[in-house]
Amino acid sequence: MSYNLFGKLFRFMTWGESHGPAIGCVIDGAPPRISLTEADIQYFLDQRRPGQSRHTTQRQEADQVKIMSGVFEGRTTGTPISLIIDNTDARSKDYGDIAHKFRPGHADYTYQMKYGLRDYRGGGRSSARETAMRVAAGAVARKILPSGISIKAGVVQIGPHKINRDQLDWDSVYDNPFFCPDPSVIEAWAEFLDQKRKEGSSVGAVVECVISGAPAGLGAPVYAKIEADLAAAMIGINAVKGIEFGAGFDVVNHPGEETVDEMRAGEDNDPVFQSNHAGGILGGITTGQDIVLRVAFKPTSSLLTPRKTITDSGENTEIVTKGRHDPCVGLRGTPVVEAMAACVLADHLLLHKAQCQ
Amino acid sequence: MSYNLFGKLFRFMTWGESHGPAIGCVIDGAPPRISLTEADIQYFLDQRRPGQSRHTTQRQEADQVKIMSGVFEGRTTGTPISLIIDNTDARSKDYGDIAHKFRPGHADYTYQMKYGLRDYRGGGRSSARETAMRVAAGAVARKILPSGISIKAGVVQIGPHKINRDQLDWDSVYDNPFFCPDPSVIEAWAEFLDQKRKEGSSVGAVVECVISGAPAGLGAPVYAKIEADLAAAMIGINAVKGIEFGAGFDVVNHPGEETVDEMRAGEDNDPVFQSNHAGGILGGITTGQDIVLRVAFKPTSSLLTPRKTITDSGENTEIVTKGRHDPCVGLRGTPVVEAMAACVLADHLLLHKAQCQ
Amino acid sequence: MSYNLFGKLFRFMTWGESHGPAIGCVIDGAPPRISLTEADIQYFLDQRRPGQSRHTTQRQEADQVKIMSGVFEGRTTGTPISLIIDNTDARSKDYGDIAHKFRPGHADYTYQMKYGLRDYRGGGRSSARETAMRVAAGAVARKILPSGISIKAGVVQIGPHKINRDQLDWDSVYDNPFFCPDPSVIEAWAEFLDQKRKEGSSVGAVVECVISGAPAGLGAPVYAKIEADLAAAMIGINAVKGIEFGAGFDVVNHPGEETVDEMRAGEDNDPVFQSNHAGGILGGITTGQDIVLRVAFKPTSSLLTPRKTITDSGENTEIVTKGRHDPCVGLRGTPVVEAMAACVLADHLLLHKAQCQ
Amino acid sequence: MSYNLFGKLFRFMTWGESHGPAIGCVIDGAPPRISLTEADIQYFLDQRRPGQSRHTTQRQEADQVKIMSGVFEGRTTGTPISLIIDNTDARSKDYGDIAHKFRPGHADYTYQMKYGLRDYRGGGRSSARETAMRVAAGAVARKILPSGISIKAGVVQIGPHKINRDQLDWDSVYDNPFFCPDPSVIEAWAEFLDQKRKEGSSVGAVVECVISGAPAGLGAPVYAKIEADLAAAMIGINAVKGIEFGAGFDVVNHPGEETVDEMRAGEDNDPVFQSNHAGGILGGITTGQDIVLRVAFKPTSSLLTPRKTITDSGENTEIVTKGRHDPCVGLRGTPVVEAMAACVLADHLLLHKAQCQ
Repeated sequence: MSYNLFGKLFRFMTWGESHGPAIGCVIDGAPPRISLTEADIQYFLDQRRPGQSRHTTQRQEADQVKIMSGVFEGRTTGTPISLIIDNTDARSKDYGDIAHKFRPGHADYTYQMKYGLRDYRGGGRSSARETAMRVAAGAVARKILPSGISIKAGVVQIGPHKINRDQLDWDSVYDNPFFCPDPSVIEAWAEFLDQKRKEGSSVGAVVECVISGAPAGLGAPVYAKIEADLAAAMIGINAVKGIEFGAGFDVVNHPGEETVDEMRAGEDNDPVFQSNHAGGILGGITTGQDIVLRVAFKPTSSLLTPRKTITDSGENTEIVTKGRHDPCVGLRGTPVVEAMAACVLADHLLLHKAQCQ
Repeated sequence: MSYNLFGKLFRFMTWGESHGPAIGCVIDGAPPRISLTEADIQYFLDQRRPGQSRHTTQRQEADQVKIMSGVFEGRTTGTPISLIIDNTDARSKDYGDIAHKFRPGHADYTYQMKYGLRDYRGGGRSSARETAMRVAAGAVARKILPSGISIKAGVVQIGPHKINRDQLDWDSVYDNPFFCPDPSVIEAWAEFLDQKRKEGSSVGAVVECVISGAPAGLGAPVYAKIEADLAAAMIGINAVKGIEFGAGFDVVNHPGEETVDEMRAGEDNDPVFQSNHAGGILGGITTGQDIVLRVAFKPTSSLLTPRKTITDSGENTEIVTKGRHDPCVGLRGTPVVEAMAACVLADHLLLHKAQCQ
Repeated sequence: MSYNLFGKLFRFMTWGESHGPAIGCVIDGAPPRISLTEADIQYFLDQRRPGQSRHTTQRQEADQVKIMSGVFEGRTTGTPISLIIDNTDARSKDYGDIAHKFRPGHADYTYQMKYGLRDYRGGGRSSARETAMRVAAGAVARKILPSGISIKAGVVQIGPHKINRDQLDWDSVYDNPFFCPDPSVIEAWAEFLDQKRKEGSSVGAVVECVISGAPAGLGAPVYAKIEADLAAAMIGINAVKGIEFGAGFDVVNHPGEETVDEMRAGEDNDPVFQSNHAGGILGGITTGQDIVLRVAFKPTSSLLTPRKTITDSGENTEIVTKGRHDPCVGLRGTPVVEAMAACVLADHLLLHKAQCQ
Repeated sequence: MSYNLFGKLFRFMTWGESHGPAIGCVIDGAPPRISLTEADIQYFLDQRRPGQSRHTTQRQEADQVKIMSGVFEGRTTGTPISLIIDNTDARSKDYGDIAHKFRPGHADYTYQMKYGLRDYRGGGRSSARETAMRVAAGAVARKILPSGISIKAGVVQIGPHKINRDQLDWDSVYDNPFFCPDPSVIEAWAEFLDQKRKEGSSVGAVVECVISGAPAGLGAPVYAKIEADLAAAMIGINAVKGIEFGAGFDVVNHPGEETVDEMRAGEDNDPVFQSNHAGGILGGITTGQDIVLRVAFKPTSSLLTPRKTITDSGENTEIVTKGRHDPCVGLRGTPVVEAMAACVLADHLLLHKAQCQ
C-alpha cells in the first residue's frame, strides 16, 4: 500500500541502501507448497546483474541471493520469504564530492528536502540497486503464475533508434547486451552506445512488455484497475518517465471506429478480437488478449560531462559523476519491467481468486 | 488500497452505477475544522456536468451533491464525509440491445468474464458516471491543500490537432467547451468535432495537468513514489491509455546532458532549476518545481457507426451505440484529471506530515 | 485497515452521525452472484432495533435499510454495496446541556480533544447508532459464509447475575428481551433491570459468542491472527471493555496439563479434541472446534443520577442524561457481536481462499 | 494490516522461523533524524533474552541485533530499518517426534491444516521466538514517542497467585526473574514455580501494562479505536487468551454511577478525572489518564507430562515435549507486551499528526 511495500495480497517490502551491508526483501502472502530454490531466483538476478558487457555498469556484484525464511524442504510454507543479497562491491572510497553536491537528475536534493538528511553513498536508498530485489520478488511471483502465462520485455528504442518491428523475435532478448528483441539492429546500437559512452553522455530507452496467456477477468474496478496497478509498478521503477498501454498516446490520432477492438465468435464461445488497441485491458480488467505496455526510461543522470549544480550549503558548483554507471539504464531495466509485471499479475490472480472463484 | 477505495490517509470509497438510484462516495481521513459546504463541491461538479455544450453528452444531470455526514455547523468533524448525487436522468428504457451484446471498446465483456453477470444499464459500474464522485472527492481534497498550490488541467490535443504552446493561457480553460488552454484553436476544434459527430465517429484527446506551488519533499520511496500514485490515479480514469511526466516519452530522444535539470543557487538557499524535464519529481519526491503530466484519452467507444461484436451467447452480430454520449470523453475528463491530482497531493501532504514534520 | 474502514478483503466503510439525516455503509469485496435483498438485511436489523421492550431505549427507529448499489436483479454484482438507513427519530430538540457539558463515560471529551470540535447531537459519530451499520454489514457477510457455519451470541451475565449453564438453549436468545440463552433467569433479570431503571442506574453485561462449523485452517500468522482480528472487531464495539477466548482469564488458574486440549483420532483422520480451552483457535488459526469468545460491556454511561463533570470552558458542573437510553447496552450489543463475528469470518474466508486454495 | 505486517503508518514486517538461520524485521515509516544505535535495541532484547534465570527456558541465545539499513551516521534516514538476529542456538537434533506428532495446545495441527505442510523444527514460524522482533520493533517505536510517555508492564498474577497491590513498585519489575512489580511475593512465586517445574507442569500469568503520559486525543473512530488496535496487538502475542481495559470484566459487577469516571476542573482547563475505570480510553480515543490493560497468558503447552495426541497420519499416540521451554511464557511475555504497546502508540501518534495537527 505504501512507502516500501508493494502489493495487496502478494506483498513485499524491500530494504537496503546502495552501499550498506546488504539489500533484501520480505515477501508475504505467497501461497504454500510451491517449490522454490535460490537457483529459481538467481536465474533472473543474473539477467539483471551488472558488469556483463561493456554497455552496462562495471560494478561487479555477484548478486547472490540467500533465502532466509519461508521455505522448508524446498517448498514455500506460506509464511514470509526473506531474501538477502550482500553488497560485495560497495567500495570504501571518498564520497566527499557527492556528499555535499546534489547530483542533478538524481534524488539527492529531494531526499535532503524530505528527510533533512541522506545516505549519499552511491545514492543510498534511491539507487537503482533496489531494483535487484524487485527482480527477486518477481522470480517468486512467476512461480505463482499459471504456466500458460509468459512475460516478455525488451528494449524497442534506444535514443532515437527504434527496432524494426518486422524483425521482432522475443526469444532473442537475452542473447544480446541490449535486451533487444530485434537482432538486426544490434550492431548499429552497439556503435551508437559506444559513441555515447566515449562522449561521457548517456541515452534513454523504451522498453516494451508483452504478457501472453493471462485469462480474461483479472483486475478490478475502480481504484485497483490492473492497468493502474501496472502503471504504478512501472512508473515507480527508477528513471521511468512514462507508460502507455496498447495503442497508447497514438490512440489520439485515430477515430473511434479504428480504435475499438471488434469481436468475432471463436471456438468455445470465446471471442476472437480483431485487433488489440486496448492492450489487453478494458475497464481495468483483462480481455484475455496480450497485455501490451511500453515504458520510457530517461538517460542516466550520472554524466562525465560537467553539469551545474549547488552544494548543500547553497553555493553554485559543477559536478562530474565518475564511478561505474550504466550509460543506458533502460537496458538493465528490462528484467525489472518483467519482474514488476509478474508481481502485479500474481497479486491480481490472488485477488481474483479471493473474490470471484 | 484497492478495489473501490482510493488513497492511504486521505481515502475515499465510491459506489453506484450509471442507472441506479444514486452514486456516492465516503471520504475518510479529512482533517477536522475545515470549512466545507455543498457549494464548495458543486462548483467543481458543475465544471464536469454533462449537457453544457453540443460537444458533450446531452444527458441532463443536475448532479446536485448532498453532504450526508462529517460536517457540523459548516466545518468538517474529522469523521467520514458521505456525499450523494441522485441519478435523475437515468431514463427507464429498453436495454435489450446492450443487455446481450458486448459493446466493443467498453468493459461489457470483461465485467461479464470477471463477475459472471453485469449491470448492463448504461455500463453499470464501469460507466464514466463514477468520475463525478472523483470530482467531488477532489473538491474536498483541494480544501486540504495549502492555498499556494494551484492545479490546472486542459486539453492540449484533440484528435491530431494540438494547441499552439505560444498561446498557452491556463485561465481560459473553463471559458470554452473544449477545456482548452489555447483560445486560438477553439474555432478549428469546434469544426473538427462537429464533423466527427456528424460522421457518428469519436476522437481522443491529450490532457495536460500542471500543479504549481507544491513544496519540495512530498512523496515517498519506493512503492509510493508520488509519480507512481499520480500514474495509478490517472490511468484509472476511464478511457486513459497513457501517462507521462515532464519530458515524457520524448526524453528518449535526447542525451543525458540535455535532460538533467541543472541547478543554480537562488534566494534563501533554494535552488533555481534551469529546466524541468523531470516534471517536478525526482526519485518519487517533488522538487518544488511545477509538476507536469499528460494523459492520453482514447476516443469514445460508443459509436453510431456499426461495429462487429458478439452476443453473450457467443453469436456474431453488430452493434450501434445510440443514446447520449460524449464524442470526445477527454473533454469532460479534464476536471477529473484535476480532481485526481488534488486527491493524490492531499494524500501525500498528510503522509508527509505524519512521518517528516 | 483504519479509521472507519473494516476488513482486509471483505471491507466496509461506515458513515453517519446519530442525529444526521442518515447513516450508511459501503461494502467492498463481496463476491458476485450472491442473492441479496433488503429483507435479508432487515431481518438482522430488526433484532437490534430499539424500542422493542421496556428494557431497551424507547427511541423509535424503523431502521429501514435501502440497497443503493451493487445488487442487480437480486444478485450481488461484485461492485460496492451501498446501504443507507434514514434517521427518522432524530428529534429536533434543545441540545444546550450536552452541547457544552462533557458527559462522563462518553466520548464527548475525547472527541473534543482530538478534533477540536464535535457534533454533540446524540453523541454524533460516537453514538452506538453506528452499530446498526455493523449489523447490516454482518448480514451481507453471513451470505458469504458456507451454510454450515452458525454464529450465536447471547447475554450470559447481567450485572452480577449469571446464567445457569446447565440451562443453555441458544435457540431461545431472540425469544426474550434480554438476548439471554437461559430461559430460567428471565424473570429474575427483568426484575433486576426494572429496579435499576427505576433507580436511574444502569448495568453491564457479558455477551458470549459461539461460532460453530468453521473449518480448520482459517486465520493467519502473525499480525492477522483470527483471534486478534476478532478482538479488534469486538473491542471496537461501543462500551466493550474486555474480551477473552475459550478458557479466557480463568486459564491462569489451571496448570498446563489441564489447559491443553488433547486429541484423539476421529473419523476421516479428523481429530476429536477432548476439550476446548483454546476456544477453537491455536496460533491464530482455527482448529475446527467451536470458536468461543466472551465480551464485557460496561453499564450505560447515560444516567438519570447526576454526575460531576466540567463544561467545555473548564468549569465544574453536574449532568443528568435524560433522553431515551438503554439501561443495559450489552443487550442490544448481542446482534452486533454476532455481526462482527460474521464480518471477521467472511474476511478470513476470502483471505484463505486467496492464499491457500 | 495483515499477515506478517503490523501497523498503519509505523509499520513493520517480521520474518523467520525458530530454527532457520535468522529472524528479522523491516520497519517502514519511522521518522527521519532520530538517533538510533544497535545498543538502543539491544537493551530491550536483553530483557526478553532467554536463559537468564532457572525460571525461563535454558535456550542460550545472544539475540544480538544487527541494523542492516535505514540508519546513517547514527540517525534514521526515513527509509526502511532492517533488523536481523542470527539464530545461534538452533541445535541440530532429531525432530522425529514432533515432525509427525501434533503437540496439543500448539499450532502444529492448525498450520498443517492451513498450509498443508509445516516447518516443525521448534514450531517454525509459530514459535514465540518471533516475539524477539516485536521487542526490537518496540525499541524503535519508543524512540518516536515523546519522552513524557512511559510504558511499564509486569506480571500481576502467576497461576492462582496474585500480587498485593498495596506493594506495587513498577520500578522493581526488572530486578526479579518474574517481571513482577511486587517484591513481597517473589519468594513465594519462586517456590511455586520450582514446584511446577519439578512436576513437569506449567502455569499461566496475567500481565498488566500501564502507559503514562500519553496525551488526550490519540486514537480514532470507528475501526481503529486505540483500544481495538491494542487488543489486536496483545491478543496476537503467543499464548494470550484475553485482554481487558481499566475495570475490565469486573465492570459488569458495578452500576453505571460507579463506573463512569467523573471529572473536576483542574489547572489549565484540563480535567481531573476522579477515577479511571475506563482505563484511559473513551470512544477509541485517549483521555490523558493512564492507559491500563491486562492480558492473560495461558500455561506453556510444552509439557513433560505425557499428553494424548494424534500423528499426522491420524493415529492415536502420546507426546512429551522435552527440550528447553519456559514453564511460564507469561514471564518473558512482559517485555513483549511493553513493546506492542509502544508500537501501537507510535502508530497512533503518527496517525494523529497526519490528520489533526
